[in-house]
Amino acid sequence: MIKKFSILAAGLLSVAAIGTAIAHEGQNPAVKARTSIMQLYAFNLGTLGGMAKGEIEYDAEAATRAANNLVVVTQIDQSAMWPAGTDNVSDSSTRALPAIWENFADVGAKGQALADAAVAMQAAAGQDVEALKAAMGQLGGACSACHKAYRAPQN
Amino acid sequence: MIKKFSILAAGLLSVAAIGTAIAHEGQNPAVKARTSIMQLYAFNLGTLGGMAKGEIEYDAEAATRAANNLVVVTQIDQSAMWPAGTDNVSDSSTRALPAIWENFADVGAKGQALADAAVAMQAAAGQDVEALKAAMGQLGGACSACHKAYRAPQN
Repeated sequence: MIKKFSILAAGLLSVAAIGTAIAHEGQNPAVKARTSIMQLYAFNLGTLGGMAKGEIEYDAEAATRAANNLVVVTQIDQSAMWPAGTDNVSDSSTRALPAIWENFADVGAKGQALADAAVAMQAAAGQDVEALKAAMGQLGGACSACHKAYRAPQN
Repeated sequence: MIKKFSILAAGLLSVAAIGTAIAHEGQNPAVKARTSIMQLYAFNLGTLGGMAKGEIEYDAEAATRAANNLVVVTQIDQSAMWPAGTDNVSDSSTRALPAIWENFADVGAKGQALADAAVAMQAAAGQDVEALKAAMGQLGGACSACHKAYRAPQN
């Protein structure tokens, strides 16, 4: 009996551990879409941040492509991606705080700050690694300003 | 004993069923990025397709926003998103067939056909629902041409 329950308990623990992954299947399409936008920021920022930290060798063309992609992604219209009822109180698959829906104007301003920072990075990324590093501050600042105000901490 | 094994079997079946979801945690960032692009196509095509089928009421502005988004997403440079070793033989979290890496020129041509179809939809979506419907064929054709040639069937 002890063995039986320990096996079952281990099974339940595994299921609990992958709870987040399960929640993302069947996720609200709007949440999935805006999460995809964040993933695309993360991917391209990973390239630029890696070069800034010296973890990836600086490559002007690759840096420019990543910066161009950031600019393009900021041009996606997200107005259909934040329907009511998709905050983290209503929907456990998102970290979007309810405050977003009470401060759309500020969220929009923070989004514009990100778009501006991406354009600044686009101008800098292909110059040299020092210019890229200098542009990272504005970009990182724009990301974290919005995350601090409107994203719940990771569980 | 029978009950014990049936419970365990049920547990294993559940774990198998959510195998795909598990695989997506810790997914290769390049795979995650290109999957995000596909999600953004799907979200905006969902709006346009819903209107074409009469499941969503036609709205010229919403249709135009969705079509604009498709055009924007086709402008993302995917050259860093298809590294060697991220086909479905090497990586179970993707349905990308190895044939992609043997036919980059054709994949690029099919991508261009999608970009052209998105531009045609951008011109049509805001006119009326009949124009939108007419443009869906080229768009759906571009999606399925690439999926038929280069994507493994869903498990």
